[in-house]
Amino acid sequence: MRSKLFVPGSRPELFDKAFRSAADAVSFDLEDAVAPDRKAEARANVAEALGGAFAGARKTTIVRVNGFESGHFEADIEAVAGPGLNVVNIPKVEGADAIKRASERLAGLERSRGLDRPIGILANIETPRGVRFAAEIALADPRIVGLQIGFGDLFEPYGIARTNRTALDVIRLSVRLAAAEARLPAYDGAFVGVHDDEAFRTEAEQARELGLAGKSCIHPRQVPLANLVFSPTAVEIKKARKIAAAGAEMHRRGVGAFTLEGVMVDEPFIARARALLAAAERNGDGV
Amino acid sequence: MRSKLFVPGSRPELFDKAFRSAADAVSFDLEDAVAPDRKAEARANVAEALGGAFAGARKTTIVRVNGFESGHFEADIEAVAGPGLNVVNIPKVEGADAIKRASERLAGLERSRGLDRPIGILANIETPRGVRFAAEIALADPRIVGLQIGFGDLFEPYGIARTNRTALDVIRLSVRLAAAEARLPAYDGAFVGVHDDEAFRTEAEQARELGLAGKSCIHPRQVPLANLVFSPTAVEIKKARKIAAAGAEMHRRGVGAFTLEGVMVDEPFIARARALLAAAERNGDGV
Amino acid sequence: MRSKLFVPGSRPELFDKAFRSAADAVSFDLEDAVAPDRKAEARANVAEALGGAFAGARKTTIVRVNGFESGHFEADIEAVAGPGLNVVNIPKVEGADAIKRASERLAGLERSRGLDRPIGILANIETPRGVRFAAEIALADPRIVGLQIGFGDLFEPYGIARTNRTALDVIRLSVRLAAAEARLPAYDGAFVGVHDDEAFRTEAEQARELGLAGKSCIHPRQVPLANLVFSPTAVEIKKARKIAAAGAEMHRRGVGAFTLEGVMVDEPFIARARALLAAAERNGDGV
Repeated sequence: MRSKLFVPGSRPELFDKAFRSAADAVSFDLEDAVAPDRKAEARANVAEALGGAFAGARKTTIVRVNGFESGHFEADIEAVAGPGLNVVNIPKVEGADAIKRASERLAGLERSRGLDRPIGILANIETPRGVRFAAEIALADPRIVGLQIGFGDLFEPYGIARTNRTALDVIRLSVRLAAAEARLPAYDGAFVGVHDDEAFRTEAEQARELGLAGKSCIHPRQVPLANLVFSPTAVEIKKARKIAAAGAEMHRRGVGAFTLEGVMVDEPFIARARALLAAAERNGDGV
Repeated sequence: MRSKLFVPGSRPELFDKAFRSAADAVSFDLEDAVAPDRKAEARANVAEALGGAFAGARKTTIVRVNGFESGHFEADIEAVAGPGLNVVNIPKVEGADAIKRASERLAGLERSRGLDRPIGILANIETPRGVRFAAEIALADPRIVGLQIGFGDLFEPYGIARTNRTALDVIRLSVRLAAAEARLPAYDGAFVGVHDDEAFRTEAEQARELGLAGKSCIHPRQVPLANLVFSPTAVEIKKARKIAAAGAEMHRRGVGAFTLEGVMVDEPFIARARALLAAAERNGDGV
Repeated sequence: MRSKLFVPGSRPELFDKAFRSAADAVSFDLEDAVAPDRKAEARANVAEALGGAFAGARKTTIVRVNGFESGHFEADIEAVAGPGLNVVNIPKVEGADAIKRASERLAGLERSRGLDRPIGILANIETPRGVRFAAEIALADPRIVGLQIGFGDLFEPYGIARTNRTALDVIRLSVRLAAAEARLPAYDGAFVGVHDDEAFRTEAEQARELGLAGKSCIHPRQVPLANLVFSPTAVEIKKARKIAAAGAEMHRRGVGAFTLEGVMVDEPFIARARALLAAAERNGDGV
């Protein structure tokens, strides 16, 4: 999921455009983008979309539900759990227990509705406590498909400047390493400057350096930028092919580490090269 | 507490000047600034000052006592606990248990002395273990009023350069997030270059970017700089007013998120704007 | 151990040169540099070297064994434990329990072989889980002599760019603080650009700023660079002498903190000055 396009559940007139975008995933929002008195309406809109016109779309479908404490969580997942839903995105996750309970609830809905594919959970890490327990959260349940950073909730209430690069990168690295313990991807948060493509792209590039796999988009114009930044480049693919080939040859010859163009290469580098080639293939980057 | 001015307990001739300074808080030091053989004298000086001439001053009064393991802790708090003391600052805190014991001791003194206002605890995070357990410390007891970073003890014995910006900011962010779990403020450490106002101000500005609420001052000349940096600016106040107003209007109209001058605004941003306006009002910045 | 020179156990023709180098320590590698079908051969080479020609060399001798899960760990330590071995370097350590088991195994070998000096353990922190539990690992057993960062395994499989300075420094600081809890040194990872002396030196200088004590070398040309960077400079020694002397004088006069050339100095600074002078003496830097 290089790009995940948000669309407010209360604005069904935007759904079609979101589905026709190049985003790897569409994320219907029932939480912060929907005012309290429109939650029920938004829920119904999203349930209809997932069951109807877009049911067969080749896109990962995500619904950002309201949090465990909101009083809306149960109604949200009951409304949207169905064959058209891939992933439930849960906000402000702070520990493993809540994830396990949510997973059981989803399992119950899957059974009662005869769903043959498990619904994944994308856990938002967007509170100080969530950051502290990010690894436990990633490891909590096989249903977890990744960790999603939320910078707004994490920084704004505590006066941490969104422009402080160290703060951004420390959180990115923490969440990346937490996800890595469970062999899961981690995703960068949304960027609030809707019309500032350059700043969006810079943020995406910084996120990619820290090993993040994609970025939330709050406007369709951000989607191609995310897809571009989070795809392997031609140079990277070429280099990865070279390392993978040399690694295979060296394995045949019984050597553990070798020097390639002045750089020592051993197992972790060969593993990385293979992972990059696999990602390129998934994106159809003609490996 | 934008500024907290340190004054050695062994130098009572400086107390008056400290109280007449613009510092939000005066912190009498019984620990590192006082040599072992002058602890008793310093303790008596501070007890006298808190009970006497300065008892009615409109300033937060803090005493930095000696640590739990020092052999001086009990005598320190017994000497200074009284109606003139607002906060005990405890050095090198490393876990929740010691805080709970200190809190019980303070409760005992409050009862036996008929104090009608609880004495707060400002916990110093200034050891590697303290950083690791900073969130547990912040959450340990309702008496905790904040976390205070100490860079000297944290960096010097381990050869970490005080000039390494990443090291400073990582610790600031860690301690800020730990305090945030308990909805508490966190404060930046002292800056040792007594005559270098520009460097002090730069450090304060960096600390503010990471969400810290104030900074220790070891010289009166640093106080106005800290007060300036940790107060909201006119531009920030203006912007916060705009966000708060738009947020109120959008709530009325049943919208959850909106775009203001090209930036998406939702709940955490509105909460931040309100917190900034409240801080400005406390400082008397004419909101 | 400012410099620790790696030499593949499968290449005995390099051992002599490694021993004659200026490296503070020689680390024989049985792990990543040795292909699976050459493990037994490498093990025998190293055992012979430690028991033979190099047994009396004035160098710290280290063997990087294969990890606990590799199936080679037992055979490795049985082959190399002897009077010629100072330290076992264990890769991918992720918790205290495995360290305790390894320590017991080494104790058994020491008893049965009548060794009169305990073999140390240098624990590699090179997985996301290892970073999370680095302090527990450092504190796990008195046999631990330090923590060793491994950036290749930590970053490559998760797509984290080795060029991201923040990522490097955050890990360095985390591991330094973890080691500090057990009063142990921490060491920077290898740098893979074999011929790029300038970049090696830059990395070493960055590591030293974060309080690391030395750096792995994968080529003999890196050894003098590491020795240089991780030795105190003449300026540092001069300044440390001044602080230590002033500290002693101030202690005599019963003062806890003082100002030296515009900078406030108290206990942690005096402790640091003394530690630096001790390190300089160990290196023979003519204190």
